[in-house]
Amino acid sequence: MTKIAFDGVPVAGTINFGLGQPSADLLPVSLLQTASDDFYSKAAGLELNYGELQGDERFRETLGSFLGRTYGVPAHANSLLVTSGNSQAMDFVCERFTHPGDTILVEEPSYFLAFQIFRDHGLNIVGIPTDADGMDIDALEETLTRTTAAMVYTIPSFHNPGGQTLSARRRDRLLELSRQHDFIIVADEVYQLLYADQLPPPALGCRTCEGKVLSLGSFSKILAPGLRLGWIQTSADLMAVLLDSGQLNSGGSFNHLASHVVRHAIDMGLQEAHIGFLRTAYQVRLEAMDAALGKHLSNIARWRKPGGGYFFWLELPEMADCAEMRKRAGDFEVGFQPGEYFSNEEKLKNCLRLSFAHYREDEIKTGVRRLADLIATELGS
Amino acid sequence: MTKIAFDGVPVAGTINFGLGQPSADLLPVSLLQTASDDFYSKAAGLELNYGELQGDERFRETLGSFLGRTYGVPAHANSLLVTSGNSQAMDFVCERFTHPGDTILVEEPSYFLAFQIFRDHGLNIVGIPTDADGMDIDALEETLTRTTAAMVYTIPSFHNPGGQTLSARRRDRLLELSRQHDFIIVADEVYQLLYADQLPPPALGCRTCEGKVLSLGSFSKILAPGLRLGWIQTSADLMAVLLDSGQLNSGGSFNHLASHVVRHAIDMGLQEAHIGFLRTAYQVRLEAMDAALGKHLSNIARWRKPGGGYFFWLELPEMADCAEMRKRAGDFEVGFQPGEYFSNEEKLKNCLRLSFAHYREDEIKTGVRRLADLIATELGS
Repeated sequence: MTKIAFDGVPVAGTINFGLGQPSADLLPVSLLQTASDDFYSKAAGLELNYGELQGDERFRETLGSFLGRTYGVPAHANSLLVTSGNSQAMDFVCERFTHPGDTILVEEPSYFLAFQIFRDHGLNIVGIPTDADGMDIDALEETLTRTTAAMVYTIPSFHNPGGQTLSARRRDRLLELSRQHDFIIVADEVYQLLYADQLPPPALGCRTCEGKVLSLGSFSKILAPGLRLGWIQTSADLMAVLLDSGQLNSGGSFNHLASHVVRHAIDMGLQEAHIGFLRTAYQVRLEAMDAALGKHLSNIARWRKPGGGYFFWLELPEMADCAEMRKRAGDFEVGFQPGEYFSNEEKLKNCLRLSFAHYREDEIKTGVRRLADLIATELGS
Repeated sequence: MTKIAFDGVPVAGTINFGLGQPSADLLPVSLLQTASDDFYSKAAGLELNYGELQGDERFRETLGSFLGRTYGVPAHANSLLVTSGNSQAMDFVCERFTHPGDTILVEEPSYFLAFQIFRDHGLNIVGIPTDADGMDIDALEETLTRTTAAMVYTIPSFHNPGGQTLSARRRDRLLELSRQHDFIIVADEVYQLLYADQLPPPALGCRTCEGKVLSLGSFSKILAPGLRLGWIQTSADLMAVLLDSGQLNSGGSFNHLASHVVRHAIDMGLQEAHIGFLRTAYQVRLEAMDAALGKHLSNIARWRKPGGGYFFWLELPEMADCAEMRKRAGDFEVGFQPGEYFSNEEKLKNCLRLSFAHYREDEIKTGVRRLADLIATELGS
């Protein structure tokens, strides 16, 4: 199995579209300072103690209302569990619901670092093809005739890395299959609120009564990754399994103090204002990347313009080897993630993922031009 | 296996010595507000982004110096991994180093909620007897002749629940056995700095070169549980195994933002001042509990006065059933943790654990009197 190095350290001068992270100007220092001050100026000592296993009830009520305003359907506090971000939540979900050797079905391509989490739990990963409407549900149904799956992992809106969104019709069918085949849908919905101009279909978190759904949400993409704060939205049955955890029973809430600060941020209206700010900023960057790709790469690459999220997925001619190309990208002061990282079958070698989240409009233009130079040099076109 | 309900919710009027948590007046709201303000007033946007897998390097340097001043031996930043508290650290360590069916050796009695974490990982738990000097190392050695252990879990200083401290001689032998039998020592050292008047022997965290040691430390007991911030101190070899984790690779540092705030608290001298304050406060409570036990229970109970930490361990006459007694404790407006919770073999029914951390001196006197009334009523003395 290819060992993938973490690509999180920016190199000065290089425009690394491999970084799926917000840029410094999008990270809300003063917002968090305000929310933090507001919390501490009213805080009682016991609020710094161990929290409820499921997470602070006031936070879960505030979060439930926030989801009502943003997802469109209010969530009951009882349906929400506080996590320390989606990576922790994925690991935790594997621990609570799987055994080594169980099968998990994932989109092909899918989020590369999720693979490592699933392998840490000894899971057998099977890929399901995707197209412009997300996971191919016919292929999923066919796979389920010969495979017993414990879980299906999906990124329904603004896919990482594909950028596409699972259609409403396919969401219905996925839920129907979950009931029929008794698997758990682990829906990674971190990009749900980062739409450019058109809302995606309702989050699977709004539909936890229609199948076995664990919807994973996070403040990493809408506030700050460093907070390590997220949530799982699910049914009472699955919640009971999550809560019966030694780690939770011993430590209390997964991230108690951060939940107080974010509760104040939401209650003060700061979180929703920040999402508005992010949507505008990301839309500008998305359009800039689409235009630059159109200008410099339309002759050689194919892509779909995403409706939101962080990512463009580029397909180069069959003979391209993007992992090889990546090794020489530094010479062109540009970076990206090779497509094969996102393949469970070490395919997709001619594809690559670009994130538009970490750079300003002008940097995106420059970076795409450099990428086009690299590709031209490598493919000799 | 007995299912143990979390006993974390205080009942008004009841003095519940079952609560192993600080009281409101010991939780540092203004300290954290000051440290938080100091961080945010100087923060750069990117400090809110994903952190280094091992944890922010500046924080690890600050923590290493702090350990030099408090443990007596400075720790290199490379030997430290940031965790989100000891419960998460224990779970993580099981995930990285064990397989279902592996054996873990624990002190009998030991921290009851650790059992649940180990069971969540399918581990086979075997108890090793303890006495006034901690784990009986002869018994450990004897067990190792017929059992292959993946890990030995120990609480070396101011044991939970026993209150005693592993002697220097036994620490040497434990490390020697770790080398001989190639098991990992998981040392839960959360009470190390909460000594009453005499320093315990050096933490096992200072001796990671002498055996396979994972020393677990936490800010829960010396600052605030709600922070969910701790650390693992270990050798380069074991660190490499910890870092090769999907969850870390995906999410970055386990608790990045909290580590910034605590870095400022340490650098401003606030953390060490707070430890001084806690040591004084807990010493008063410890003495109050010892005196009250002497006054009300010396005729029927036996205990060792602990040298620090949170806990007294009481032994009642053989026929006592403390779990049964606990059911009627509410009538006396008092609470405790029955001894059998801390036994891996459902023994120790005539023992109980009292925490002196959550109540003031006067409340401790009143609570112990109530406990004596309960015991007298139950045992008909």
